[in-house]
Amino acid sequence: MAETEPLDRVMVVGAHPDDPEFGCAGTVMKWAQAGKSIAYLLLTSGDKGSPDPAVRPGQLAALREEEQRAAAKDLGVEQVIFLGYPDGLLENTLDLRRRLCGLLRQHRPHIVMTIDPWRRYQLHPDHRVAGQVALDAVYAAREWYIFPEQLVGGVEPWRVREAYLFWTEGADYWEDVTCCFEARIAALARHSSQVDGNFEEVVERIRQRAREAGEALACEYAEAFKRIRFR
Amino acid sequence: MAETEPLDRVMVVGAHPDDPEFGCAGTVMKWAQAGKSIAYLLLTSGDKGSPDPAVRPGQLAALREEEQRAAAKDLGVEQVIFLGYPDGLLENTLDLRRRLCGLLRQHRPHIVMTIDPWRRYQLHPDHRVAGQVALDAVYAAREWYIFPEQLVGGVEPWRVREAYLFWTEGADYWEDVTCCFEARIAALARHSSQVDGNFEEVVERIRQRAREAGEALACEYAEAFKRIRFR
Amino acid sequence: MAETEPLDRVMVVGAHPDDPEFGCAGTVMKWAQAGKSIAYLLLTSGDKGSPDPAVRPGQLAALREEEQRAAAKDLGVEQVIFLGYPDGLLENTLDLRRRLCGLLRQHRPHIVMTIDPWRRYQLHPDHRVAGQVALDAVYAAREWYIFPEQLVGGVEPWRVREAYLFWTEGADYWEDVTCCFEARIAALARHSSQVDGNFEEVVERIRQRAREAGEALACEYAEAFKRIRFR
Amino acid sequence: MAETEPLDRVMVVGAHPDDPEFGCAGTVMKWAQAGKSIAYLLLTSGDKGSPDPAVRPGQLAALREEEQRAAAKDLGVEQVIFLGYPDGLLENTLDLRRRLCGLLRQHRPHIVMTIDPWRRYQLHPDHRVAGQVALDAVYAAREWYIFPEQLVGGVEPWRVREAYLFWTEGADYWEDVTCCFEARIAALARHSSQVDGNFEEVVERIRQRAREAGEALACEYAEAFKRIRFR
Amino acid sequence: MAETEPLDRVMVVGAHPDDPEFGCAGTVMKWAQAGKSIAYLLLTSGDKGSPDPAVRPGQLAALREEEQRAAAKDLGVEQVIFLGYPDGLLENTLDLRRRLCGLLRQHRPHIVMTIDPWRRYQLHPDHRVAGQVALDAVYAAREWYIFPEQLVGGVEPWRVREAYLFWTEGADYWEDVTCCFEARIAALARHSSQVDGNFEEVVERIRQRAREAGEALACEYAEAFKRIRFR
Amino acid sequence: MAETEPLDRVMVVGAHPDDPEFGCAGTVMKWAQAGKSIAYLLLTSGDKGSPDPAVRPGQLAALREEEQRAAAKDLGVEQVIFLGYPDGLLENTLDLRRRLCGLLRQHRPHIVMTIDPWRRYQLHPDHRVAGQVALDAVYAAREWYIFPEQLVGGVEPWRVREAYLFWTEGADYWEDVTCCFEARIAALARHSSQVDGNFEEVVERIRQRAREAGEALACEYAEAFKRIRFR
Repeated sequence: MAETEPLDRVMVVGAHPDDPEFGCAGTVMKWAQAGKSIAYLLLTSGDKGSPDPAVRPGQLAALREEEQRAAAKDLGVEQVIFLGYPDGLLENTLDLRRRLCGLLRQHRPHIVMTIDPWRRYQLHPDHRVAGQVALDAVYAAREWYIFPEQLVGGVEPWRVREAYLFWTEGADYWEDVTCCFEARIAALARHSSQVDGNFEEVVERIRQRAREAGEALACEYAEAFKRIRFR
Repeated sequence: MAETEPLDRVMVVGAHPDDPEFGCAGTVMKWAQAGKSIAYLLLTSGDKGSPDPAVRPGQLAALREEEQRAAAKDLGVEQVIFLGYPDGLLENTLDLRRRLCGLLRQHRPHIVMTIDPWRRYQLHPDHRVAGQVALDAVYAAREWYIFPEQLVGGVEPWRVREAYLFWTEGADYWEDVTCCFEARIAALARHSSQVDGNFEEVVERIRQRAREAGEALACEYAEAFKRIRFR
Repeated sequence: MAETEPLDRVMVVGAHPDDPEFGCAGTVMKWAQAGKSIAYLLLTSGDKGSPDPAVRPGQLAALREEEQRAAAKDLGVEQVIFLGYPDGLLENTLDLRRRLCGLLRQHRPHIVMTIDPWRRYQLHPDHRVAGQVALDAVYAAREWYIFPEQLVGGVEPWRVREAYLFWTEGADYWEDVTCCFEARIAALARHSSQVDGNFEEVVERIRQRAREAGEALACEYAEAFKRIRFR
Repeated sequence: MAETEPLDRVMVVGAHPDDPEFGCAGTVMKWAQAGKSIAYLLLTSGDKGSPDPAVRPGQLAALREEEQRAAAKDLGVEQVIFLGYPDGLLENTLDLRRRLCGLLRQHRPHIVMTIDPWRRYQLHPDHRVAGQVALDAVYAAREWYIFPEQLVGGVEPWRVREAYLFWTEGADYWEDVTCCFEARIAALARHSSQVDGNFEEVVERIRQRAREAGEALACEYAEAFKRIRFR
Repeated sequence: MAETEPLDRVMVVGAHPDDPEFGCAGTVMKWAQAGKSIAYLLLTSGDKGSPDPAVRPGQLAALREEEQRAAAKDLGVEQVIFLGYPDGLLENTLDLRRRLCGLLRQHRPHIVMTIDPWRRYQLHPDHRVAGQVALDAVYAAREWYIFPEQLVGGVEPWRVREAYLFWTEGADYWEDVTCCFEARIAALARHSSQVDGNFEEVVERIRQRAREAGEALACEYAEAFKRIRFR
Repeated sequence: MAETEPLDRVMVVGAHPDDPEFGCAGTVMKWAQAGKSIAYLLLTSGDKGSPDPAVRPGQLAALREEEQRAAAKDLGVEQVIFLGYPDGLLENTLDLRRRLCGLLRQHRPHIVMTIDPWRRYQLHPDHRVAGQVALDAVYAAREWYIFPEQLVGGVEPWRVREAYLFWTEGADYWEDVTCCFEARIAALARHSSQVDGNFEEVVERIRQRAREAGEALACEYAEAFKRIRFR
């Protein structure tokens, strides 16, 4: 990969549908509008997140996949991939790392956006796992002899160039998302099964956080990331 | 599934490319000609099976996938799926069971053909795992609340009706494959990377075994299976 | 334990409610009538076994625990213990072995009855696990320094004296259960959630098997076991 | 659970007997006196913590369970539960999470007190595991379809309302324990097997830390916690 | 390896000290006298096998290693390797397979002798694991890209030529050990910690089995094996 | 161990060859010159770290072991131990903990130097595992009944007295390495396979960091550590 190659392929790795819309949707939309090609990779379909026992996990998963596709479309995301792991039970195994590594090698994203697994009091175990395994897979994807059985038919090792971690305490990069802010809120609203009932409160929280992040850039709304540039 | 529904979708689960051609290719071909729809599911792409260290695992995997596709085409198999697990390192985990269960629910085969994991002195660990996990997945696939996150968008529990286990000591079903025998040998020859050098010896062994199995039916060539009919 | 101590405490280890009634209920009843003290240990509560998705796993578990308690009471079983592992997903881990080992050391059964895990084509993964882990726990329970943290407050290592494995190909012990046969069938009927709809067929199968086993003793009905006497 | 329900059931999850007395005994005592119902859940019985090889693990466990019960009684704790896992070898598995989840659903604590697993240089692996798995279980306990086999006989999903993490770097809540301080030291003294020989030094350290924490409230002694309020 | 190379390096893989003396000591001694070079590989040092709780595991391990070395010396074994895994808790993991694979590649035995893991009612979990992992390691050792990190400094893949499985139901090879029989019994006596108290009974059992095996060869004493010739 | 015993045995635990030279080589050299006995323990031989697929893992491992031995010799390290785990795939299992615990008990280091596993954005999974498992093993090594099978032939529990964690955010100890700085750079140069091509840039980075650390001591070059004194 030439050093001057534009970093125009992005993969967002989340644990559940709606993680991207809660975490980095403004940046996703802005980057999509700027011509980057964005793919979502959701490890689970959020099948456990209903207070109503009459909604079975698969029914909820179907609904949430639909919601996620609608939100992604609103933002200009090109592709949404669901891996179908069971919500609430993710573990950072070598099996999952291999699965993600293979997808990185096939999709060849320059940039990975994911959850910061080092954030203290990141309480959801799935969130910690998703962020950690995504980064571990980035390391694995670079080497010829880690999961070498994947290097089939033109697939080669792949070096992700940058990671942007959201939900972070270690922010060192801010993206001005003022332009897209209302649209990214609208995308969040697609996740009716999760936000109906307290949508206004949720929006207020996100708006507040985006305003605070905006202070770093002296803009109205921003999103904060820990940026990692892989050598 | 009505009791009278014809059992016309078949999934063959093997550990490596060439497992079906070694184990049950005559039956596969005969059934394909009789109108059954056959899919191959290979857990690995056989990436470790080369005596030459200059052939990297991925290179070998690419070659063997091609060989497998050619052989499958010869036999009339409709679809070949490679899961890309690492050759030689299969383990019968719940993760792998979930993966296969999901595929069974999507493909809805009436019949699963796989390796008999109970055969004494089945030495290859991958062979034991492939057969066992395939059958364990058959049980899982039937229930609404085992891996319920998979029952998305019309996917429902699925009851495989029969399993045919090859490489078995407990044969109780024989298929007359006289009609297809030479063609199934030709399909085996597609696996050049594995059989070149001792092809004649291999063929002789398969021919001999098929003749012995044929005695059960008083035909020239047969393939022997342990048949399981799931209640 | 003196050699002449009567073997009068029995623990039956099954994977699901109804395993004992399908597998060894006649012997259980006969032994209970003869004064042995019998406890059931069920690893799961059979929570996945419903074809109706509107019945949630916990609801089914509640129902099946009740059915199991009723059946056990019919047979004269003193105690029924449910461990609550998830149906369909048992694995033979050291954790589960430790759990069972602790229970063996507390209950001090002379005899363990469980499923023969070596039977070829024992298809249900839970059945294989239940039998295997029960026997592995018997070995562990004997030693001072395997799971030594359990030897608390008077709890000591415990040597199970005999195991009786049901659903076996290696039968070498038969119990004449003619006296209890109809009563053990009645106990099986308590498992309505499992046997309603095809109860007669089920009974016929059990009756047939008990008749065949009876031939070994020249009695009407018997149950067959592989008996293991631990040195 | 109505929003206005008083938060009066508390579960303290520790890795070893004495963890609560070292970490949060003043608050436990004060809350017990204020009418809260407190239960201790100890994952291990601390069976490895003796410098004398002639004391076997089970002997030590028996002693330490007794010490823990005495200390708990001093503090007004209602119930002490020992899970009996092996000291020094805890792992944060889904099995352990399921076990704790089941206990949360049965005991229905409004508040969980446990070790802060995010503290840097929390060196004891058991301490990290205990805190993490307790919080992971809190998340699991809320959902209908995580470990659904547990929702038996009236057991329902349970939402813990608050967690208080002790041994923390992220303190944001302080409890004035001046009233109970000497009594909580006396309770600590019950753990003779652990504190004899250097009790004064231990007390001094705890006193010092409580004084420092007291500064936040301008009181003599306080205990510091990271408080988490679950939405 | 030229086809005509004599098969003169032998590795015996057992779970515990005394497994070789119970299982195949006559053959070991005869082969050693015939010039083969024999190494023992013991996965554990049998640290749990004492009925006296005052004997700690490490003390017992020390004693049993000494006994094993003495017995091996009697038989003409050149080398005894102890891996030090914990007695009673062996698991067939990829980690253990890798460990054994590395040792096979370094020691380059032509023949592996181990326990038959397929024997029905092989009750000791360690025995099943030892035999299975030894054979799985034989398969792994042959390939360039299974555990490729081991092929360091002249170490190359290694093809074991034959395996002899003892404690087997599938015997197809018998070795006349009449010449060495009394000497192999003497070697067994070295394991005082295990056989004192019932040595005569043990000897009688072994003698009886050797006589029965001898019938296959019409000799006084033989040892029976399942022989596997790897292609 | 008497309190006044000099802390003169040091074990450096790294994930890959070159970890010590990147992390703490100045201190290693200074301490060696001051008479301490230093051993390196490398969990892997760095077999994956080549951009050239024609270099097989084992070949690279051989080269890197040689480089590591040369660098260690330059620094005055007495012993280099390679455990041969696969590069890039380390996991913090109880198996690995047991392995390290045994080595600590045999080598009896007063001081362990390793990677700080708590550093935020320590991206390499192997680095996190190496540091964590080393510290977990320190805890295990102290107890009579954790991995008691290791306490064979005079081996006893061992209390490491101090740990020095490098690559840390929590530095509280600095070692003036001005005296050894250029020599430690020379030692780093031994790792040609890793540093050729960008050696100057690497050196500049290390020099810069050492200068910054030097400010704490008002010396030219220092290395920064989180020091842990085990009670």
